[in-house]
Amino acid sequence: MKRGDRLSINHYSVRQLTLEQLVEECRQLRISYVGLWREKVRELGIERAKALIDQAELKISSLCRAGFFPYDDAAQRQKSIEENRKTFDEAAVLGAQLVVLVCGGIAAAGLSASREMVAEGIANLVPYAVERGVRLGIEPLHPMFAADRSVIVTLTQANEIAERFSPEQVGIIVDVFHVWWDPQVYEQIARAGSRILGFHVSDWAVSFTDPLMSRAMMGQGVIEIRKLRRVLGDLIAE
Amino acid sequence: MKRGDRLSINHYSVRQLTLEQLVEECRQLRISYVGLWREKVRELGIERAKALIDQAELKISSLCRAGFFPYDDAAQRQKSIEENRKTFDEAAVLGAQLVVLVCGGIAAAGLSASREMVAEGIANLVPYAVERGVRLGIEPLHPMFAADRSVIVTLTQANEIAERFSPEQVGIIVDVFHVWWDPQVYEQIARAGSRILGFHVSDWAVSFTDPLMSRAMMGQGVIEIRKLRRVLGDLIAE
Repeated sequence: MKRGDRLSINHYSVRQLTLEQLVEECRQLRISYVGLWREKVRELGIERAKALIDQAELKISSLCRAGFFPYDDAAQRQKSIEENRKTFDEAAVLGAQLVVLVCGGIAAAGLSASREMVAEGIANLVPYAVERGVRLGIEPLHPMFAADRSVIVTLTQANEIAERFSPEQVGIIVDVFHVWWDPQVYEQIARAGSRILGFHVSDWAVSFTDPLMSRAMMGQGVIEIRKLRRVLGDLIAE
Repeated sequence: MKRGDRLSINHYSVRQLTLEQLVEECRQLRISYVGLWREKVRELGIERAKALIDQAELKISSLCRAGFFPYDDAAQRQKSIEENRKTFDEAAVLGAQLVVLVCGGIAAAGLSASREMVAEGIANLVPYAVERGVRLGIEPLHPMFAADRSVIVTLTQANEIAERFSPEQVGIIVDVFHVWWDPQVYEQIARAGSRILGFHVSDWAVSFTDPLMSRAMMGQGVIEIRKLRRVLGDLIAE
């Protein structure tokens, strides 16, 4: 396998592009994987998106995203389940074998209860996903997103949940931007082992202002990406 | 002890005030403790600050701040040591028995090495602080500050370092804004026990934009302050 053969570009890293433009860029740059986003797929229409990607012989590293499990009431819970199932249906149509989970922020019941809702929500979804040939990848987000996006903020939490399932059902997404600060990061990457289904790279600019938009290019920030990648290298077959 | 008798106002929460104005506000509001900041003390002059506080019969909960241990070279290390010693000298003059440590961001040697520099730096300072009757309080900051302000981002890390010393030498500052997201927070507050020398309250606004300035008033955010305070209540004698 040649260097770069497993490189995937996440559509949200270049979200100014339409899916058609992204596919064309991938062709020109010889990038063989794309990380798709549902809204970008929907813009084009799922059947056309599928045809476009197949024609370009692109592979899909993952579909973003399902999750947002914590709920305030039964109606919200049901809505979340339906939206997540729909995501797996779409993944199956596209031939995406991995759906990334952004687990959701704090519900009215509080932080601990919300974390339990995440574990419960994943357990509830697994059979449906398995039927569609889709694996779930839990992606812990940086603690600055704990309130509104993901009560799962460490690889430790992600591992604890994932380990209730087989690695074919539930894995882990390591995004260095979200987990680099964690004193347990190397230990938890090792623990996740073959459950790691994605390794997202970007960097953390020291002079940091906006939580969402302040990612730096790799090498221009403080994240020890090579060191993190090395732990991974011993775990995943090239 | 009456409710509120241990309430302290941190000068940086009302940094638009001079120290003279702060002391006057405390008098009017019957607040009996202040958390001082070196630069605000210096504006007035340390002797005048001391006289003002004594005259108002105010108590000093802590002096902020020493720390910033990670260094790129020997000269920077020496400068940090001297600045920290000066802080303890000032604390002794003021009669402040606690200096808050903000441990510092990432030095050129990287994250792990920087964390070791913190532990080494604290060990190096303890004898000097003890001679001046000053305790050190390690305050973990939120992981969004790991790059530039504090490589110590969890109570677990703070406890691990503090436990190398006696509770009379090194304690812990719990600032709910910084640690609320941590799945280990209750366990680690319990672990810190009588080492907890400060409990800082503010809140985390869900619609969060600026890392430094987006604190909310207590009750207007997502932090479970009462629940965190209850753990503390069992640990610290009223």
